[in-house]
Amino acid sequence: MSIRIVLVETSHPGNIGAAARAMKNMGLTELVLVNPRYFPHPDATARASGADDLLDNARVTASLADAVADCVLVMGTSGRSRAIPWPSVSVRDAATRALSASRQGNVALVFGPEKNGLSNEDLDRCQLLVSIPTDPEFSSLNLGMAVQVAAYELRAQQSESLPAFESEAPPAAAAAIEHFHAELEALLLDVGFLDPDNPRHLMRRLRRLFARAAPDENEINILNGILNSVARDRRARS
Amino acid sequence: MSIRIVLVETSHPGNIGAAARAMKNMGLTELVLVNPRYFPHPDATARASGADDLLDNARVTASLADAVADCVLVMGTSGRSRAIPWPSVSVRDAATRALSASRQGNVALVFGPEKNGLSNEDLDRCQLLVSIPTDPEFSSLNLGMAVQVAAYELRAQQSESLPAFESEAPPAAAAAIEHFHAELEALLLDVGFLDPDNPRHLMRRLRRLFARAAPDENEINILNGILNSVARDRRARS
Repeated sequence: MSIRIVLVETSHPGNIGAAARAMKNMGLTELVLVNPRYFPHPDATARASGADDLLDNARVTASLADAVADCVLVMGTSGRSRAIPWPSVSVRDAATRALSASRQGNVALVFGPEKNGLSNEDLDRCQLLVSIPTDPEFSSLNLGMAVQVAAYELRAQQSESLPAFESEAPPAAAAAIEHFHAELEALLLDVGFLDPDNPRHLMRRLRRLFARAAPDENEINILNGILNSVARDRRARS
Repeated sequence: MSIRIVLVETSHPGNIGAAARAMKNMGLTELVLVNPRYFPHPDATARASGADDLLDNARVTASLADAVADCVLVMGTSGRSRAIPWPSVSVRDAATRALSASRQGNVALVFGPEKNGLSNEDLDRCQLLVSIPTDPEFSSLNLGMAVQVAAYELRAQQSESLPAFESEAPPAAAAAIEHFHAELEALLLDVGFLDPDNPRHLMRRLRRLFARAAPDENEINILNGILNSVARDRRARS
């Protein structure tokens, strides 16, 4: 069980290196890169200054879904405000949750591209949005710095005592939750509740609702079972 | 009264720029440079990316004593262990003390040269030594990153509680939630997912899940709308 750092579509390889050094300073080892613009790259190696092993072992994936498929908790950092508000925690609370959840399974902390941050589609893959406190007048944090702050919080809290996790079952993996949302969307289209020409954030609102509930493995199996039963019933009647 | 950042004999001007940006992100404005090797410098300006005003206003002094003469609290950061143990606090506790003391007078947080950190002579000017937690196997933090972590702690403690997730709509009334659960149960019986002879706490599990999500008025309307659409679709097919 580990806490991984996921960098999505990073433009500047120097930031990848700075992130690797920041991680290693704080005892984190698992770096995943989603579609990096340039990697490997000499700027990454230079800024890593000694954390080259993290770069050598970094996994490169084509999508955020691949990067977090086995994770029980996925949290995305964002400075932008969103069309619909997302469940959001401070980076300090995020570190507490990450350390607690990492006793159940893998955890991902996701950082978006330098310029615009995570897209809404990538944010949909995150159960929680992490916000780093900044001066609202000058709030754009360098990517490496953002990784440093998050990694520091994890390190600082590692020795502190943590509340026990109360669920009976392990938290659902991201892939199971994605499967549920895909099946739910298909059903809502079939029964005419979701209008593809006028989706009005419906699926995002539902994602947000279920993200707050944070279903465990049993619960996501129940939800998927319900969708299967409804689909089977529809087929039997057609 | 303010909290200033003092950089002593910085070798790489890029680190001065990174420190300025980190400060400005966290709402700090006062930068003092003791004998910088190169300053002003294009690398400093480039890395400051928008925090040029802090560089323009930076005071340059010939000694640490000059830089902190008017301060009521001076704290020095150091990764090195010292010949004589020095009174030492974590960066989190240092931020608490700095914020408290800044109501009485000026406070300085002092960062030494990249290579060796503060000299013992400069450390003598500090009342407290600040330590940033790191992995002992790889403990050398980049100077800009160290400033970022300290500035972040100051900011985080200043704005202690971030606004929690704020719903757009009022919470759903209990009657609306009951209606949803009744309709959901009816559907689960109809499609054969809920076996009345062996209910196995299914409805209770679902209640618990939705209770955690605490749906608001809009969300319960969406959930009820989904159940209505599925029911209508079933009727149309029978």
